[in-house]
Amino acid sequence: MATSAKPVLHGYFRSSCSWRVRIAFALKDIEYDQIPVNLIKDGGQQHTQQYKELNPMQQVPAVEIDGVTISQSLAIIQYIDETRPGTPLLPSDPKKRAQVRMISDLIASGIQPLQNLSVIQKIGAEKVQWAQHFISRGFQALEPILRETAGKYCVGNEISMADICLVPQVYNAERFKVDIEQFPTIKRLNATLVEIDAFRISHPSCQLDTPEDLRQP
Amino acid sequence: MATSAKPVLHGYFRSSCSWRVRIAFALKDIEYDQIPVNLIKDGGQQHTQQYKELNPMQQVPAVEIDGVTISQSLAIIQYIDETRPGTPLLPSDPKKRAQVRMISDLIASGIQPLQNLSVIQKIGAEKVQWAQHFISRGFQALEPILRETAGKYCVGNEISMADICLVPQVYNAERFKVDIEQFPTIKRLNATLVEIDAFRISHPSCQLDTPEDLRQP
Repeated sequence: MATSAKPVLHGYFRSSCSWRVRIAFALKDIEYDQIPVNLIKDGGQQHTQQYKELNPMQQVPAVEIDGVTISQSLAIIQYIDETRPGTPLLPSDPKKRAQVRMISDLIASGIQPLQNLSVIQKIGAEKVQWAQHFISRGFQALEPILRETAGKYCVGNEISMADICLVPQVYNAERFKVDIEQFPTIKRLNATLVEIDAFRISHPSCQLDTPEDLRQP
Repeated sequence: MATSAKPVLHGYFRSSCSWRVRIAFALKDIEYDQIPVNLIKDGGQQHTQQYKELNPMQQVPAVEIDGVTISQSLAIIQYIDETRPGTPLLPSDPKKRAQVRMISDLIASGIQPLQNLSVIQKIGAEKVQWAQHFISRGFQALEPILRETAGKYCVGNEISMADICLVPQVYNAERFKVDIEQFPTIKRLNATLVEIDAFRISHPSCQLDTPEDLRQP
């Protein structure tokens, strides 16, 4: 356990779930330390005994904060929101909160797990088509939902956990060459969001552990 | 759209995510109407145009409540909790809330989506081994987490959303013949929970749409 008073994020530059947490910290203006966990090197550092004690699921992210360790990105984000001042990450209206959670869970349960590293490794040769299938299926559902809920952002005109989930999933979609042009609402929201500081500084292209050849200024 | 003042649950007797919502309604003592969506018959009634308008993701559950339609079971459960009196489904302490959400998300994002009907249909012949692999991996992570957080129930001595997620996942594990004896904490918690009325009356063996041959008194 780190003993720093600052939260410690164990994450990986390209993990979309780690990126969600980095965005949340940035939106809340919270300083934190990062300990990179390389998901590829040495067969995956998430499988070491030391890391398994932090997160037995052997996935990133895990956050040490206020004397406890929390894994699962949406649990982390909501803990940060409930204990820290600043920009709220969920709206106060219960129906809008439900919409934010519905969109977040559609991504976090309905899309991301199916194109996660450990799953596509198990799929093998067909992995690109597999990931494309599940990302496309998810975006085909997300597009009409967002058409109903979105204003400037995913739910109305305030940034929320739904936006925090959307941008890293669009990044994954692009990595797997899913054609975003089919989804005009997703495309518009993503284009707006990626210009915002909290999304830019947390981007996989400019993290502590981003390899030189993937680094962008 | 149903016009009933009571919430309407669109679900399927054997869907673990539908069962979660039935448990939440029962714990909160909320009367609701059910409209069965048969996931097998006619190639799956979740794919009809009518149902896609309720949930574009073409999955159960979806709930019509207070003039809105919410899909994604954890979004539904938290909406119910935030708008209805009675037994709280999340603790008031932020760290315990984080633990409840961490356990719920480990199941709802880390296990269930990988043994979901649409996924194992795509896997084909290897589907039982596939489901066993991901359920076992999830339970191997869940067991040490629950050893830390559990009292009588998953987090301390109050029933929560974590328990609502656990019991239907153990039911799925048993269907896929995962040996629960390996996970003594999960086994103990499940044995306690299945005796509780809200879990019994919502069980897949006694729903409106349970086929005669699977029905138990």
